Amino acid sequence: MDNLQRLQQIRIILSHTSHPGNIGATARAMKTMGLDCLYLINPKSFPDAEASARAASANDLLERAVVCQNLDDALQHTILTAAVTARPRELSLEVLDAREGAKELLRYAHRPVAFLFGRESAGLTSEEVSKCQIIIHIPANPAYPSLNLANAVQIITYELRMAAREDAMQGEVTTQPASFNEIESLYLHLEQLMIASNFLDPRRPKLLMQRIRRLFARARLEAEEVQILRGLLASLEKYWKHTR
Amino acid sequence: MDNLQRLQQIRIILSHTSHPGNIGATARAMKTMGLDCLYLINPKSFPDAEASARAASANDLLERAVVCQNLDDALQHTILTAAVTARPRELSLEVLDAREGAKELLRYAHRPVAFLFGRESAGLTSEEVSKCQIIIHIPANPAYPSLNLANAVQIITYELRMAAREDAMQGEVTTQPASFNEIESLYLHLEQLMIASNFLDPRRPKLLMQRIRRLFARARLEAEEVQILRGLLASLEKYWKHTR
Repeated sequence: MDNLQRLQQIRIILSHTSHPGNIGATARAMKTMGLDCLYLINPKSFPDAEASARAASANDLLERAVVCQNLDDALQHTILTAAVTARPRELSLEVLDAREGAKELLRYAHRPVAFLFGRESAGLTSEEVSKCQIIIHIPANPAYPSLNLANAVQIITYELRMAAREDAMQGEVTTQPASFNEIESLYLHLEQLMIASNFLDPRRPKLLMQRIRRLFARARLEAEEVQILRGLLASLEKYWKHTR
Repeated sequence: MDNLQRLQQIRIILSHTSHPGNIGATARAMKTMGLDCLYLINPKSFPDAEASARAASANDLLERAVVCQNLDDALQHTILTAAVTARPRELSLEVLDAREGAKELLRYAHRPVAFLFGRESAGLTSEEVSKCQIIIHIPANPAYPSLNLANAVQIITYELRMAAREDAMQGEVTTQPASFNEIESLYLHLEQLMIASNFLDPRRPKLLMQRIRRLFARARLEAEEVQILRGLLASLEKYWKHTR
């Protein structure tokens, strides 16, 4: 696949955007860099005249934008997602700067990958970040790191285009990474088994599932590995039922 | 001088901006990357409530912004200026992409250097470009290269910050580059002499002065070299008057 064609596999996901102007400006920023796959989670107002005005000649992206009710819907069939955030995190995933992060996701972009951007005011929630595998940090003035949402998208998409321009793509990923759907099914299966076996108390779950997510996020599971793990879980379940 | 301090030597000049919102968004983009030196040439409306709203917490930059009547005023005491443009030029100067250009200007930023951005609709005029030494091109989608003005500023200032972060500044310039004022005085002196000697017909100037400008732009004159050239011109004048 041509490097610049890969840009079209890349989703930009905006979560709970308050200002419709930022959605339009994001569409324009994406199109100037050759991306065209915009997902919106519960935008406050969309479609909206201000979004269309700010999109200028990128209105086609707004027309094709996918509006979702939650993050899970927006991540369907993706194989890698980066949370773009300025806030430090308690449960830290791998943190890359915008340049490294763009290169890294582009390596996987023979299948759908995503960049997730949070609310204008409060950024991403911990739950949202826990569904990502990487955190991307845009270097900024520590005294005023508050980038406009569409400008943050502009920097990320610019870095993607710069990475795609490089003559030889370094380290293209040829394995078969597991999709969001496969990994979420694994987590669900695992959680059920943990509860059934009294390892996890659903009334006091603590951070157990988040720690599991972090571990597997670092590992970047392959599809076959998910099958193996689920096979193991099924086997444990079966044995356990049999011996009870 | 600390690399990040150099960012404060760097002027962002907006020429004839139509939409005050873009001025505010530019101030915010600059401040997030640690720049604070904004020049405005003949803005359509400034100060303006929309500019202030879009600047968010970067209103201090708007308050300190220098409003000029023409480009010469905005370039006072600069030693190097880059025209940021998407259009190809007849009289082409050295062309760098945003990353190379940011690194190059930062090398000179122990004294004032500038990035010049044109009108939202029509970009920079040929006359404006002819007062710059470098053209900077932001890589973009050829089918839609129309970046929003403040987003173009965001990419340039982001690249400046990335360049400033690099541990060892490569090839800091230790010579004494000539200032805009010194070079313009040289051009004026040269032009007068060309006219007096009938080499240049002021009624049919063609592109002669532009070609001279391009030549010296490539050379990046030092202050001492300008003195030498002006000494030569004075000497020629004197000799010529004497023999006449």
